[in-house]
Amino acid sequence: MPPPEFDDAFRRQLRALFAWRRDVRHFRADPVPDELLDRLLELTALAPSVGLSQPWRFVTVEDPARRAAVRASFLACNAAALTGQESARAALYARLKLEGLDQAPCQFALCVEPDPAQGHGLGRATMPETVAYSAVMALHTLWLAARAEGLGLGWVSILEPQAVLTALEVPASWRLVGYFCLGWPQQVEEQPELEREGWEHRRAAATLRLRR
Amino acid sequence: MPPPEFDDAFRRQLRALFAWRRDVRHFRADPVPDELLDRLLELTALAPSVGLSQPWRFVTVEDPARRAAVRASFLACNAAALTGQESARAALYARLKLEGLDQAPCQFALCVEPDPAQGHGLGRATMPETVAYSAVMALHTLWLAARAEGLGLGWVSILEPQAVLTALEVPASWRLVGYFCLGWPQQVEEQPELEREGWEHRRAAATLRLRR
Repeated sequence: MPPPEFDDAFRRQLRALFAWRRDVRHFRADPVPDELLDRLLELTALAPSVGLSQPWRFVTVEDPARRAAVRASFLACNAAALTGQESARAALYARLKLEGLDQAPCQFALCVEPDPAQGHGLGRATMPETVAYSAVMALHTLWLAARAEGLGLGWVSILEPQAVLTALEVPASWRLVGYFCLGWPQQVEEQPELEREGWEHRRAAATLRLRR
Repeated sequence: MPPPEFDDAFRRQLRALFAWRRDVRHFRADPVPDELLDRLLELTALAPSVGLSQPWRFVTVEDPARRAAVRASFLACNAAALTGQESARAALYARLKLEGLDQAPCQFALCVEPDPAQGHGLGRATMPETVAYSAVMALHTLWLAARAEGLGLGWVSILEPQAVLTALEVPASWRLVGYFCLGWPQQVEEQPELEREGWEHRRAAATLRLRR
């Protein structure tokens, strides 16, 4: 196949995709068709990975008891986190995220196999964290592809990783990268919710760069 | 601004972008224009980050002495890695990667501030690794945007992180995520080099999924 030619029109749309990708917490109840989810997962196989090790493991979660265990871990961690926060805002955001867990029709955990046979160990001897980083790029691939389909994704990180791994009965060596809610967003926004609510604002790239 | 509408044509091109993004090791000597690099870095500001903390720090490296120090770290780590490998192939890939470091007109380190003030700590109490994961998604954003411009990126992970941080004289709290080569690729390929050379082959997504 000849290499694709990407033009200015595509680059403008790609920029719009980056700009309109959100961390979504409010979902409509409509299900995500299986074939659509399969299509998104297939794209993750194209993500970069250290030594071509593909160490990511997507665990779709439908069982109500397992979902309830994840929710319970979120509630426990969140209560602990709020103890350390003086701000009433923190409680607000916790509630928003809980709505995501309660509403999202599709949910999955992303795990990583920290010592995969695939890839023969190439490139990760001095920086073993590149294995988890590979899984993160697979997730980001799915996030962008989902947005291009009109789907929203929400990343839940206020969790006790071991509690989630136990609830999901995954192989003992796997580690949790994150837990994710996927579905049709109630609203489509360009501005991050944390920015709209005054929690934090986005800085320009120039302030995050150093020259050496 | 009204939300963008992404259609099938865009999704096909996005899939092609994922499929034709490579880890590039062979670069032409032509420089990467400053305004193009600036444009790519600007897009990274749109990447997702835990609590909107934007913890990534891009460090562009032009100073020959600093580049030489990075190269020396690569050589030292690589010699150590090869000791543990029986395969002659490992030496081949090490050489290919070294060519990237010697040829790439643009090079940068990606660092992370592990305890950023921005974001007010939201979302990272139980999973502090989400801070580094945010930086990885900023890098992946740049990687895709670079490919859409015809540029290739190569990730160098065979390094002693502290040696690189010292050579770059970055703030003491920063940690290294990776070191990257950016430039115009000598060849445009759909298949990963590790796959073409028989090191490893890509598995289908269905084998990397579990249902619960």
